[in-house]
Parts: sequence; structure tokens; C-alpha cells
Amino acid sequence: MPVADQIKASIAGSSWIRKMFEEGIELKKTLGADKVFDFTIGNPDVAPPEKYYSIAGSVATDRSKNVHGYMPNAGYENVREVMAKKASSDHACDVGANNVVMTVGAAGGLNVLFRALLNPDEEIVVPKPYFAEYGAYASNHKARLVPVESKTDFSIDIDAIDRAITDKTRIVLINSPHNPTGRVYSAESLEKLASLLKRHKEEGRHIYLVADEPYREIVYDGIVVPPVLSLYSESFVVTSFSKTLSLPGERIGYIAQNPGMDDCGLVMNALILCNRILGFVNAPAFIQRVVGELADEKVDVSIYDKRRKLFVNGLKEAGLEFAKPEGAFYLFVKSPFENDVDFVNHLKKYGVLVVPGSGFGGPGYVRMAYCIDEKIIEAALPIIKKAVSEIE
Amino acid sequence: MPVADQIKASIAGSSWIRKMFEEGIELKKTLGADKVFDFTIGNPDVAPPEKYYSIAGSVATDRSKNVHGYMPNAGYENVREVMAKKASSDHACDVGANNVVMTVGAAGGLNVLFRALLNPDEEIVVPKPYFAEYGAYASNHKARLVPVESKTDFSIDIDAIDRAITDKTRIVLINSPHNPTGRVYSAESLEKLASLLKRHKEEGRHIYLVADEPYREIVYDGIVVPPVLSLYSESFVVTSFSKTLSLPGERIGYIAQNPGMDDCGLVMNALILCNRILGFVNAPAFIQRVVGELADEKVDVSIYDKRRKLFVNGLKEAGLEFAKPEGAFYLFVKSPFENDVDFVNHLKKYGVLVVPGSGFGGPGYVRMAYCIDEKIIEAALPIIKKAVSEIE
Repeated sequence: MPVADQIKASIAGSSWIRKMFEEGIELKKTLGADKVFDFTIGNPDVAPPEKYYSIAGSVATDRSKNVHGYMPNAGYENVREVMAKKASSDHACDVGANNVVMTVGAAGGLNVLFRALLNPDEEIVVPKPYFAEYGAYASNHKARLVPVESKTDFSIDIDAIDRAITDKTRIVLINSPHNPTGRVYSAESLEKLASLLKRHKEEGRHIYLVADEPYREIVYDGIVVPPVLSLYSESFVVTSFSKTLSLPGERIGYIAQNPGMDDCGLVMNALILCNRILGFVNAPAFIQRVVGELADEKVDVSIYDKRRKLFVNGLKEAGLEFAKPEGAFYLFVKSPFENDVDFVNHLKKYGVLVVPGSGFGGPGYVRMAYCIDEKIIEAALPIIKKAVSEIE
Repeated sequence: MPVADQIKASIAGSSWIRKMFEEGIELKKTLGADKVFDFTIGNPDVAPPEKYYSIAGSVATDRSKNVHGYMPNAGYENVREVMAKKASSDHACDVGANNVVMTVGAAGGLNVLFRALLNPDEEIVVPKPYFAEYGAYASNHKARLVPVESKTDFSIDIDAIDRAITDKTRIVLINSPHNPTGRVYSAESLEKLASLLKRHKEEGRHIYLVADEPYREIVYDGIVVPPVLSLYSESFVVTSFSKTLSLPGERIGYIAQNPGMDDCGLVMNALILCNRILGFVNAPAFIQRVVGELADEKVDVSIYDKRRKLFVNGLKEAGLEFAKPEGAFYLFVKSPFENDVDFVNHLKKYGVLVVPGSGFGGPGYVRMAYCIDEKIIEAALPIIKKAVSEIE
């Protein structure tokens, strides 16, 4: 076998996504690029905040000694200080610089956490639907993802989580604002979740709560994402600046640890070790220094909001069902076909590309990303309406 | 257990290095910072090439759309094209852009390779001594490092490698110029190694040759590091710009694959998948674009060479034994004590900090890094001489 068995299986398993991507390219050739409407990718197109450019220019040309050198594996002390303040304010919790590790995005952060915390065969409970990569991150560390049903409005089903917890459960992983549904978990539901985990802790099951929240700042209608760290001592936040500052390709984020957790110092040493040995070594020096100056900035969320409204109205007119997103930049739309892949294929005939919910543990739905130009959305909506009306 | 068992063991196992580091800080307090000579760290202090600054400044402030966005997980096509040319020229082999993955340094590249290629319990054969992190990289993927003896001059012992190969061997990992010894493997020894692996392939054992070579450009006395890819089809090069351009904190490197290997496309898909799922997603966009313009540049190696000569002469005068380094920026010095940690502790009493060879699978030696200011070396040499003369 030329590659690892698990990896060969993953390549085979993901090949239909690749196929769809390649079909999209073919589609552009046959229909013309302006007749193809690609809502598959969550790659933000909004520019970084204006302040980014002056900071980046001066950091990039800084001639001070060792500015491109190795630093502590956890990141620059002053940058961690800034992130600690941010996490403290977001999470109503007194996070210090010593509770923060700068990471290669949230994806890097989650791998660091999983490597540090999980023995082989241990379990991560996650509400469905969920970000498709979680399963791969778990299997990197020979751990197992245990997806559980959510309520029909995609809020957390506490009883379902309770039923899924076993003696092998080490992590409950939540993502709010949520990809792919746009749901923001309520303070009440998070409190219930925290109570549940406290009860399990009393019963001898030590389970970490991990909040993956790269979309915390991408919210609408005045919604505020409730704090997580303040609710339960054994908790982490993992986040990135990919969406808040539109810098996904630069790979920068952080893990913040609840300072009140058991064996806090040992856990932090484990995170720092894993950041190093997984080959990240440290988050990239340049972008660490840049985001250290931009912690209070964010992209113009009103751009996403305008598209969201456009999409919501257009899809309603088309007769489609979906929960109005409260955050992030995705719509999770009920498939008029029983099989979501049939809907994906139907839309494709009209030049509209979307991702099947099956890939997110949410069959019967499709995901549409609205981080693309409003003109494309405007042009696509009548076509989507036509496509839906022509379902036999 | 608050953290994974393997990670807890690793933290405990590496705690004496941390202890030494902390003792170094204490030492600076008691002896004064100017009386402590720290040769422990391989963190290059030489400035990047002048061209870096203009390129970095213009890339950082580029306002083109999507320059900070996600790109293909393998990296920018044009940057891969540049690296393919470089690998082709270094390795006398026709590497194409499709055979290259941009990675988060060589450490990231090795983890991607190990994740992609290794099933649990499979083996990586590596000549001793070896870069201390290799063992951790192997254990990330539940694989096993199998260190084998080298010849006394630290050249490859082909017979020792042959004896270590089993049906579980998937990779032979070499590092030249070598950390910690400074050895550059000869063309002849590499040819013998390639012949050995070809014979095993004929016998049904498919073993990859992985050349980890971040120090390829840091060589002295006109030495040229021989090509590897041209010798054996089932081969990879992993490298970084950490040393060549003095950018270790920026985390940029690449994997180049021999285009003639079996299942070439499948293996490349596996590498790209693993770059994504290990959480790197892609090498940082900014520094990818920068190094794409700097592939023919390198730091001023004469600075390292001057220090090397200074060190070599001074240590000879002190009566110490070592192989004169041909590349990289380390000296691997025979300990006058049987136990290298005793020598480390003896030198520490004089304010001289070095790393024990035991940490590199090379007990009986200590490693001294000369990527620090020449004045510190000049000041330290008489003290090292005194320390050696006062060994009882």
C-alpha cells in the first residue's frame, strides 16, 4: 500500500466532492463562467479592515534582530497577552497570557487540542450537523467522533448529548455561530450543557468542553454570542482570525484555556508541546505580530448581512425552507428531494453549485455559502427559483 | 488523566531540558548575563537576504482580491512551480509543480509525510544521532522510530541500515547536512543506500527514502550536497527556508516528490489531504508569496563559516575532539566524561550552556550551535579551555 490505509480510505471517501468541484470547472466551460453560481466555498471575499495594511507593511519590513526567529512555541508573550484580554472579555473569565497558545488557525488549534488530550479510541461528542473536517481531525489522533442529533431548529439537544456520553468521552465539541446552519447557541442551552458536564464530572467522567468559534464576530440583528468559559471550568476556546479579519490563508488563531481547569499547568504544557511536535512549531511570526495589533478590528459584517437578507428573501420566494442564520455566512437549506445529493445534482443542471448536507452529518439539507459577491447572488436567485419550480 | 498518556510521558521525558533552560536563566541572574554563553539553540541570528525586505513589504500591502484567502491546499501554483525548478536543479530530477506541496516548515512537512504514509506500528529507520524531534513526529502517528548506528565519522552505515529493515519499515529518513554533527553524506554513500532500497523493493519491501535537508545551502569549503531524488524513484525531499533565508519563525518549506514513484498521483493526493486535515490547511499565504520570489537567494554563509573556524580552532586548543562540520551550524563534540550530561553540567558551572548528545540518540557527545554572535564565541573559548583543563 503506497499510503496509509486510513488516508487511502479518506481520499476515496472524499472523491465525490472533488468530482463535484471538477464538474463545476467543466460546467463553466460548457455554460460559460458567468452562468455558473458557486456557493460551495467558505472563502471570505470581504477585504481585511483598513488598519491591516499599515500594520502589515511595517511588520513585514521591520529590520529588528530575530523578528523572524523562533519564539516560545506558545507564541509571542505580548500577542498572547492581547488574546488573553480578548478571550477574557468574550468569555467573562479571567484568562491570562499563560492560558493562551497561538496556533496555525482554528484547524491547527483543534489538532493541537486533540493530540494533547485524546488517547486512541477516546471519543469526541459533537452535535449534528458539524464541520466536515472534525472527523478527519479525530482520526488523525486515532480518536472517534460521536455525532449526536440536534433539535429540529439546530439548537443543542442536551438529552441526546447526555445519552451519547460514555466512559470514553473526553471532549464535547460545539461550534457557535454554527457552520453549516448559522445557528447561535443560546446562553440557556449552554448553561444546561455546562450543568450536564458538571454532573458527569461529579460522577467521575472528566469531559472537556471545547468551543470552536471562528465566527463569533460574524453575527446579525444585534445578536451577541454568549460566553462559554465562564460556565464550566474544564473548557477551551479555539478560534481564528480567518473570518473576523478575512485572513484564512494566513493561518492564525489561538487556543484559550479556562484558568480554573484541573491540572491547568500540565494541560498548557501539553498544548505547547503538541503545537511544537505536530510541526506547527509556532504560529507564523509575521501574522502573529499583525493580529496582535488588530484584536479589536473586524471586517465589515454589514456586507454579509446584506447578502444574507438577499438570499433569505430570494430562497423564501423560491419556496425553500431553512432556518434564518443568526451568524456565520451559510444557509442550511432543506432539500426538496429526500436525498440531498439529488438536489445538489438538480441545481447543478442550472449552473448552481452547493454542498450536500450529508458531508456535514446533516443529510436532507444543502449548504450555501454567501461569502461571494452580491451580484452573483442576485443573478442566481431567479435561477434557483426556476430550478425549484421545475422539480418534478 | 487530564492529558493523553503519551503526551504526559513526553512532557515528563523532556522536563530535564526545560530544567536546564530554567537553570540557564538562574545562571544569568547569579553570574550576570554577559557571563553566560548559550550554545543550546539553533535559532539563526543572521539577517535574511536584503531582497527579502522589498518583496515582503510589497506582498504585505498588496490589496488585490483574495490574496489572504484560502488557496489550493498544496499552495499557490506559481510558487510550487518555482520550488519544482529548485528541487529539479538540487536533485538532478525533473520535478513538476504537481510534485510539490508547500508546507508549514520542514517540521510540518515531515508530519504531513508521516501521516500520509504510515500505518500505526510501522517503522522509520534513521541513522544516529538524529534530530531530537523525529521521535515525537513518529509517535504523533503511532509509528515507531528505529535509530541505527552510524560509522564513527557519522557517515551512513549501510549494513546497519540493512540489518534494521523489517517488513514494517516504510521510511528511511536521512538528514544532510546533518543536525547535530554537521556531516554531509557523500554521493557514494547515498548511491549505496539507494541500491539497498532498490534491492528491498525487488524483494517486495516498498520503502520510501525521505531526505530532510533544511541545511542544504549552509555548507562550507565549496562542498556541494549531492542529489538524492535522482538516485531512487521512491523518494521525497522535505525542506524549509528557516535556515537558507533565516525565517524559522515564519514557518515555510515544501515537500517535493520524485515524479517517478509508484502511484505518484495517489501519494500526492494523500500529501495534500494530510496538509489540510492536520490543520495546516495551507502554508501561510504571505510567506509563500515572499519565498516564491526568493528561491535563488540565501543568507551570508560566510558569517557562519567564520564562526565555525573560530570554534574549530578554539575547541582544538582546548583539547576537545569533534568532526569538523561540513555544513549546518552545529559542532558535535566528544564528551571528556563518559556521561555527556556530566560534561553539560561541568560546562554549566563555567556559564557555558550546551545540549547533551543523548537527546539526539548520540550519548557521549554534546552539541554546540554556532548561530550566535562571534563575540560570544570569542569570549567563551578561553572559558571552555579552562573548564576542560579543570576536569578532574
